[in-house]
Amino acid sequence: MEAPSPDAVTSARAIAEAARRVASQLAVATTDQKNQALRTMAEKLGRRKDDLLAANRTDQDAAAEAGVPENLIKRLGFGEKKLRSRQVSLEKIAALPDPIGQPFVSQRLPNGLQMQRVRVPLGVILMVFEARPHVTVNAGAFCLKSGNAAILRGGSEARRCNALLGELWQESLTEAGLPPEAIQVVSGSHEEIREMLQLDNLIDLVIPRGGKRLIEAVARSSRIPVIKHYEGICHVYLDEGCDLQQGLNIALDSKCLMPAVCNAMETLLVSQKLVDRLPEIVQAFIDCGVTVRGCPRTVEADSRVEPATEEDWRSEYLDLIVSIRVVDDLGGAIDHINRYGSHHTDSIVTNNLAHGERFLREVDSSVVLINAATMFCDGESLGMGAEIGISTDKLHARGPMGLEELTSYKFVIHGEGHIMGPKRYRTT
Amino acid sequence: MEAPSPDAVTSARAIAEAARRVASQLAVATTDQKNQALRTMAEKLGRRKDDLLAANRTDQDAAAEAGVPENLIKRLGFGEKKLRSRQVSLEKIAALPDPIGQPFVSQRLPNGLQMQRVRVPLGVILMVFEARPHVTVNAGAFCLKSGNAAILRGGSEARRCNALLGELWQESLTEAGLPPEAIQVVSGSHEEIREMLQLDNLIDLVIPRGGKRLIEAVARSSRIPVIKHYEGICHVYLDEGCDLQQGLNIALDSKCLMPAVCNAMETLLVSQKLVDRLPEIVQAFIDCGVTVRGCPRTVEADSRVEPATEEDWRSEYLDLIVSIRVVDDLGGAIDHINRYGSHHTDSIVTNNLAHGERFLREVDSSVVLINAATMFCDGESLGMGAEIGISTDKLHARGPMGLEELTSYKFVIHGEGHIMGPKRYRTT
Repeated sequence: MEAPSPDAVTSARAIAEAARRVASQLAVATTDQKNQALRTMAEKLGRRKDDLLAANRTDQDAAAEAGVPENLIKRLGFGEKKLRSRQVSLEKIAALPDPIGQPFVSQRLPNGLQMQRVRVPLGVILMVFEARPHVTVNAGAFCLKSGNAAILRGGSEARRCNALLGELWQESLTEAGLPPEAIQVVSGSHEEIREMLQLDNLIDLVIPRGGKRLIEAVARSSRIPVIKHYEGICHVYLDEGCDLQQGLNIALDSKCLMPAVCNAMETLLVSQKLVDRLPEIVQAFIDCGVTVRGCPRTVEADSRVEPATEEDWRSEYLDLIVSIRVVDDLGGAIDHINRYGSHHTDSIVTNNLAHGERFLREVDSSVVLINAATMFCDGESLGMGAEIGISTDKLHARGPMGLEELTSYKFVIHGEGHIMGPKRYRTT
Repeated sequence: MEAPSPDAVTSARAIAEAARRVASQLAVATTDQKNQALRTMAEKLGRRKDDLLAANRTDQDAAAEAGVPENLIKRLGFGEKKLRSRQVSLEKIAALPDPIGQPFVSQRLPNGLQMQRVRVPLGVILMVFEARPHVTVNAGAFCLKSGNAAILRGGSEARRCNALLGELWQESLTEAGLPPEAIQVVSGSHEEIREMLQLDNLIDLVIPRGGKRLIEAVARSSRIPVIKHYEGICHVYLDEGCDLQQGLNIALDSKCLMPAVCNAMETLLVSQKLVDRLPEIVQAFIDCGVTVRGCPRTVEADSRVEPATEEDWRSEYLDLIVSIRVVDDLGGAIDHINRYGSHHTDSIVTNNLAHGERFLREVDSSVVLINAATMFCDGESLGMGAEIGISTDKLHARGPMGLEELTSYKFVIHGEGHIMGPKRYRTT
């Protein structure tokens, strides 16, 4: 790798140092201050709506001129509806309980010490994400509420809109009596980001959000711990003797409601005891406009099914395509999921409680469900109020991440002169 | 860096793949099986005592011949007393509750879903540590009880004793009906370990234990997440108006009881309101055989105090040496600790509750205490039953790490046909 330019080094370090400097102030900021900044930001989004939409249109036009593909230009959009939803989300995050300072373990120990484990911020969080301005609002809000200083580096195609959002964050923070460096929206070069990823003494956590290649690139070059949000190759398994209508409701909801999200189902596994019902199952998907690929037995059941290749079982389509595979039994389903899946979200439809419990225990995924659609893998549905993403890692945070997942803790001990050794000193 | 030899690559991969293969079996092993393996290991330590002590003596002799320093040879020792203490520890770990499968959150959600967060193993843990055979017993026991496959790579000076311990682990596992690859004691070259640290698709966590250089080397070259156990530069602060006898008891206990452990005090901070009492404070340390270095005001108080340099405030002496500094007030103490400390364990002695609470809140350390010795920063004293180490990281685990800190979790959801969209499919 080439040596980084002195400018990139200086600039990356200045940003990270500014974040580090204010992290201790943020750690002791009051809940009211943080909520005030969040609500002020919501107001400002409304008041500066025209400027934001104009900046976003300029970004979109420039991207179109530069030949950026249509679907990416669409994702870059920050129109009236998205802006409104961010205002609602800011209010919602302000209304959530503040995780900081909360003891989650509290114990009088046999030695008489009073011990608590109390949530504290991680410190400084760097988010690297694609050209999606609503993430600039959402990630900033999550980091702030959890007491962390945030460095937000969104895709350069969104830079005009992001720069304005960064200004609004700084105004909102200042008006709440908080340091404006608490949320820094930056637009540095790739070289500068690569440099920032080396600063493990200044930054505590990196969360990359976006395509697999972006995440891999960040994870590979970072010295700072990374929590990854990889793809979801999610499954529904229709067990022998299940209620097929319930099973199809769950499978279709998991496939069709939001096919482009990571917790959408990609592969339907079917017990061989249900092989007679395959025509009905395939028909149901085709009726919903879904292209069906399948194993030989599925192909046999309906001539419209395309033969699936080995590649299909490892594919995250993010589209109205499903692959269907007949498996011998529950064990076959579990093996398939643990082998081909991405350990994200998997569901069994069954009337057999023992089967259900075995599936829940043996499928090694962050979210496992019985008789429910994979759609329920999201922070809001699972009682966390909102989410900053869905971790595919096992360390620190797994599955949907809410505010608590952006915290660490400290042990807080109250003694009354406790010493461990037997020797006591007598003053004269 | 040179390309690794094909042998090192093959061997590292074979070990990691074997661990990965058995990880899913371990994840569903029963508590009884795991405890049986732990208790069998305790028995075997007793039955093979003579062989173990002989192997350890051979290791020590070889180390002495190779010119290894005396204190390292001592740490390498695995005599009768250490062996007994490991037997006790194995029984103790067997008696601890099994963290795996325990729900730690359980909630009926507004949408009617029943949600639990259930502890699961991390998967495969690689421990890299110095030539200390008792760690081979302790780390294996911790990983096993928490359902993780372990790869244990201890310092090569202990290889004979470790190899025998590895055999005993394999026998113990087999007798309990568990795969012997659950605990692999390996003695690969540095090259092989460096290769293993690249296998982030097979190994979930690395815990290096030992000197700062070992930990840094592992952290720098690993693609796998690392939980670091760095040094402890720990403080006691004697606040204005504190009970000086209590303060000296706490400071001397923190310094003298076990000066070589990471949570021993290195620097004593004294409020300037107590400057008249400095002669008494210095005398107390000298009476206990402690060499005192100090700031100018401490030097003034007693001619036997050596002037401390900037370097002293950043030193982990691990010895009967203390540095003493007078600070203006509570704020000065907090600033000193956050600046020079290692965010490990820090204590305030005070009668002022507001001062105490501010110290606990603002000192950014994994363990903060009021009116108690820093000695209490250990897993057993803090109610975790035992500990595998003290993390100086903030991510995943901070401070003393027990069994729960070696686990991840999954979201387990029970539904009754729950779908998220409004559309229900009707079968014909």
